[in-house]
Amino acid sequence: MINYKLLTPGPLTTSKTVKEEMMVDHCTWDNDYKQITQWIRGELLELAHVSPEEYTAVLMQGSGTFGVESAITSSVGRDGKVLILSNGAYGERQEDICKHAGLKYRIQHFHYNEIPDAKVVAEILAADPEITHVSMVHSETTSGILNDIESVGRVAKAAGKVFIVDAMSSFGGVEIPVADWGIDFIISSANKCIQGVPGFSFIICRLDELKKCEGKAVSLSLDLYDQWKGMFDGKWRFTSPTHVVLAFAKAIEEMKQEGGNPARHKRYTDNEKLLVIWIAIGLAFYLKQRKNFVKE
Amino acid sequence: MINYKLLTPGPLTTSKTVKEEMMVDHCTWDNDYKQITQWIRGELLELAHVSPEEYTAVLMQGSGTFGVESAITSSVGRDGKVLILSNGAYGERQEDICKHAGLKYRIQHFHYNEIPDAKVVAEILAADPEITHVSMVHSETTSGILNDIESVGRVAKAAGKVFIVDAMSSFGGVEIPVADWGIDFIISSANKCIQGVPGFSFIICRLDELKKCEGKAVSLSLDLYDQWKGMFDGKWRFTSPTHVVLAFAKAIEEMKQEGGNPARHKRYTDNEKLLVIWIAIGLAFYLKQRKNFVKE
Repeated sequence: MINYKLLTPGPLTTSKTVKEEMMVDHCTWDNDYKQITQWIRGELLELAHVSPEEYTAVLMQGSGTFGVESAITSSVGRDGKVLILSNGAYGERQEDICKHAGLKYRIQHFHYNEIPDAKVVAEILAADPEITHVSMVHSETTSGILNDIESVGRVAKAAGKVFIVDAMSSFGGVEIPVADWGIDFIISSANKCIQGVPGFSFIICRLDELKKCEGKAVSLSLDLYDQWKGMFDGKWRFTSPTHVVLAFAKAIEEMKQEGGNPARHKRYTDNEKLLVIWIAIGLAFYLKQRKNFVKE
Repeated sequence: MINYKLLTPGPLTTSKTVKEEMMVDHCTWDNDYKQITQWIRGELLELAHVSPEEYTAVLMQGSGTFGVESAITSSVGRDGKVLILSNGAYGERQEDICKHAGLKYRIQHFHYNEIPDAKVVAEILAADPEITHVSMVHSETTSGILNDIESVGRVAKAAGKVFIVDAMSSFGGVEIPVADWGIDFIISSANKCIQGVPGFSFIICRLDELKKCEGKAVSLSLDLYDQWKGMFDGKWRFTSPTHVVLAFAKAIEEMKQEGGNPARHKRYTDNEKLLVIWIAIGLAFYLKQRKNFVKE
């Protein structure tokens, strides 16, 4: 049996107790299970600092990309045009989503080590009134850079645009006041900062904008509106990854016990500092050894 | 902890040992894991009685519907037209898939207790030369009816059409000689007769037809061609449900130990007979009691 720590942004190492939840087979449509789904949806709204009057959380089978595609294609639709701000592979993936679905889009590239500038965004929006949506990645896993979604959100809202954020590797690890920052759709997945196992993604949606998604999706499976409509009482339209969902509920519970998002953020930051220190020590040691070697 | 037997066609009750495989966190892109994916893909071809020279197995995140949508939309594309033979909810779902993607289709409805007649299919194909694909469900879970895909396959092939089969609740429980029956794409999922846990589907594809799918999909996530290209060495393009995949590998192993498809088919058939007998005994008992009650 393999037993090592995963040092990836997700799938990541989960607790034994989270995994143990998967030792039960559950029907995907019975009442107990629907209640678990509903509980998860409520907890996600709390994590996003939004109210159920304004927002709703929709769970979607598949990886994070499935969730991002669901949000973009269901909201932009055939009549909209989305401005993608990209400084890494996951920004570029949004372009690929639009190309596949035949959506109108414009992509603004930034260097991988450069944060998309809200002023540039404002200029583009002023120059191209056809744009209806702005979409970007929060924590771009390509480089680990954390983008300034707050400033871009402000600009997008001032211009009256819908704002979509892929917060795959930040949601739950970095505080995001979703409503305050003007975010209409924010996407993450089970196997990132909430520390569940992989198998589904979730989209936190502003209800006003979600309601406009009816009939827009080009994919039945990834139709965000239909998935939301079906999920009003906790029912997933199609078979859900029951074991993964049970594990995710446990992961949320454990996150709350740890102290929620702030505690998790502190632990991640502390770990990062430690990692940087040890890399520095390791490099110093290596360089010293090398110097000795060169002398000889 | 809930501990009952699931009497659904899937998710179903899985063995303890299958679930125990999920007690390990695995990276989705390391070599060990890729080899597990490759092993699964090879085993699926054997279960389908096809050779790797002619066919390939592609795994797809999400539920069975995600797999069906992936196959239909990636193969029919914007230039094709698919004839859907429907005698239940899952046939109707194929229509919904086509509507969402904007594909050209024609649906032929049959009664829920009626098997689609191959002669009717031959007539439709003769009358409508625009049709390029024929698609249907094998075991229609709505009623439990087992459709005659062999006869329809013969007719579809005689007319030179691509043949797509949703074998969600039959593959692994009913013998399907995929190549002999002229099937080009056959779809099932992890949580049905192979008795894994839910989280992904798989599509067994005739290579000739799969190669024609390049650039046709309207969904990045469900692009069957891209998924296949990425998976040549066992890599999933996007994060895979690692725990579910490990459980599935174990489920295949246990199926082989049981005696493969023939043994599983016998067990299911025996269970069904027993069920019918007990229902009959129960009904007789009920009617007798009722008679006594009426007398009094």
